[in-house]
Amino acid sequence: MMRIPFADTIQTLTSILIRNGFAPERAAACALLFAETTRDGVLTHGVARFPRFVATIRNGSVDPAAEPVRLTGFGALERWDGSKGPGNLNATAMMNRVIELSRAHGVGCVALRNTNHWMRGGTYGWQAAGAGFIGICWTNTMPNLPPWGGVERAIGNNPLVMGVPRKSGAVVLDMAMSQFSYGAIEKYRRNGELLPVDGGFDIAGNLTRNPAEIEESWRPLPAGLWKGSGLSIVLDVMAATLSLGNATHAISRDFLHETSLSQMFIAINPAALGGTEEAERIADEVVASVHACAPADAAKPVRYPGEETLRKREENARLGLPVDESLWQEILAL
Amino acid sequence: MMRIPFADTIQTLTSILIRNGFAPERAAACALLFAETTRDGVLTHGVARFPRFVATIRNGSVDPAAEPVRLTGFGALERWDGSKGPGNLNATAMMNRVIELSRAHGVGCVALRNTNHWMRGGTYGWQAAGAGFIGICWTNTMPNLPPWGGVERAIGNNPLVMGVPRKSGAVVLDMAMSQFSYGAIEKYRRNGELLPVDGGFDIAGNLTRNPAEIEESWRPLPAGLWKGSGLSIVLDVMAATLSLGNATHAISRDFLHETSLSQMFIAINPAALGGTEEAERIADEVVASVHACAPADAAKPVRYPGEETLRKREENARLGLPVDESLWQEILAL
Repeated sequence: MMRIPFADTIQTLTSILIRNGFAPERAAACALLFAETTRDGVLTHGVARFPRFVATIRNGSVDPAAEPVRLTGFGALERWDGSKGPGNLNATAMMNRVIELSRAHGVGCVALRNTNHWMRGGTYGWQAAGAGFIGICWTNTMPNLPPWGGVERAIGNNPLVMGVPRKSGAVVLDMAMSQFSYGAIEKYRRNGELLPVDGGFDIAGNLTRNPAEIEESWRPLPAGLWKGSGLSIVLDVMAATLSLGNATHAISRDFLHETSLSQMFIAINPAALGGTEEAERIADEVVASVHACAPADAAKPVRYPGEETLRKREENARLGLPVDESLWQEILAL
Repeated sequence: MMRIPFADTIQTLTSILIRNGFAPERAAACALLFAETTRDGVLTHGVARFPRFVATIRNGSVDPAAEPVRLTGFGALERWDGSKGPGNLNATAMMNRVIELSRAHGVGCVALRNTNHWMRGGTYGWQAAGAGFIGICWTNTMPNLPPWGGVERAIGNNPLVMGVPRKSGAVVLDMAMSQFSYGAIEKYRRNGELLPVDGGFDIAGNLTRNPAEIEESWRPLPAGLWKGSGLSIVLDVMAATLSLGNATHAISRDFLHETSLSQMFIAINPAALGGTEEAERIADEVVASVHACAPADAAKPVRYPGEETLRKREENARLGLPVDESLWQEILAL
């Protein structure tokens, strides 16, 4: 693992994106999102995802010049088409759009179809909360998870993101509907470790903590078992019916062609109702009550969603982004 | 278990509510919600909850005559005070209000404070979907669940509800943030059964399927472990900061004084964007894709959220509501 300065990372990725059809400003904005994700400690969806992202530009899944188009709207509710543009730029634009709608109407909602993988979902929760807004958004994905009671991958892991502003640290949840991602399962296997809790079924249908057995069965667990399975389905049907876009079952299972996704964005403008100082006090009290909870392991205090991100953000901004040397060589050769 | 006709149940509960300070129309509306919950198969939150509900009227936690009051609003966003009125009537009124707001603005959002237990959360998802609207709502609760990594009950099980309209059966999720409720755990113990999967920790901190050990430790699992724990916290902070109401830590842990809760209601008007027929086709295709998934047990086909409710609704409407004889005697004596 090497450390690359934040600014150098952005510069390198920006140049590559420009060579691959991005206008300079859009290249810089897109590169920034990749670098910020690694800086925030979500290594799976940051710089490490960049080579695959470039591959999806080159194979035509992602159109670097395409921008989202407003199809129709009524008051604070709109339907947009992502035009197969870059998923992270599209999602940033749509979160900005619902923030704008919520400035005018108190709340705003956009259903987006025909977009691409948004990389780290938490990005858009931080975006809303950082601007002083409540943000709620989710995406569907290819079928990558068996529903509860099923043995085939028929639902998506459909990440759900919620962000709430707070001066001393926003509360931001970024939750995929699988208990462990395939990437996490692979990592445990490579390290020769068992999962800390059951993470899926073996081919005989028994629950297991053995990552290799889950990779063999392709049956990881939904988060919360029947609960996350149901949540995945309702998020999918909501995003697809409101955007008139693809539902999970209609999306390609090939990583390089997982395109034309459907997403939802909601923003709420708390300042429109006043009471900002009281709301701040209430949020601080919730955080304090979480911190006051006696931990199972004295070395691991209980944390609120987003807290760990702030710590890693500071650390990686100071030390440079942690990047595998082989990955960095691969990126330099793009 | 006896069977009481739906109409008789409503009549009995209505009379009791009138004797306990409800105006006749509100008594009938409130009784209907209890009866519908049992009819829909959610026995824990229907007629079985009625004696406790009456006790909270008699001890002053619930004011039968109080109605929610609009505190402030901006466009499609409003803050209301529940005035400690009956939780199910308040929640019905607030879902109606956001439906109204979404008719005018495409989307509507209400933050409600100072309300009471809304009984079955799914009620308000069915309400929205039945009217042709997308509904999203959640409530906080008393601290009844240890957060992930903690050993004390410091977060709520904060049910989250999402409903999407579909002509041949709405998709409705009603998901509390505990994997098993205390009521479910108690039922397994009384039946001398283990839970089907790990449901909590024993006092030594080991995961267990033994219901008695979880009752002893008071450490049931959050649904999705760290995921449901985080979701509970963000739902709480969002509802409390936007309503300027109580967060979970500020709510009494005594069932009979679990009052002044905070809730959120969001409705989206899909018809405002057109494409209703295409949306219907998309929803049907999602349902078909779920049904097409090969099940682990051939006798248990994979279901979408809300599907089982429709089956039970039909069965119990036909046969009468299933009610314990001792419970019914207790109700008749109220």
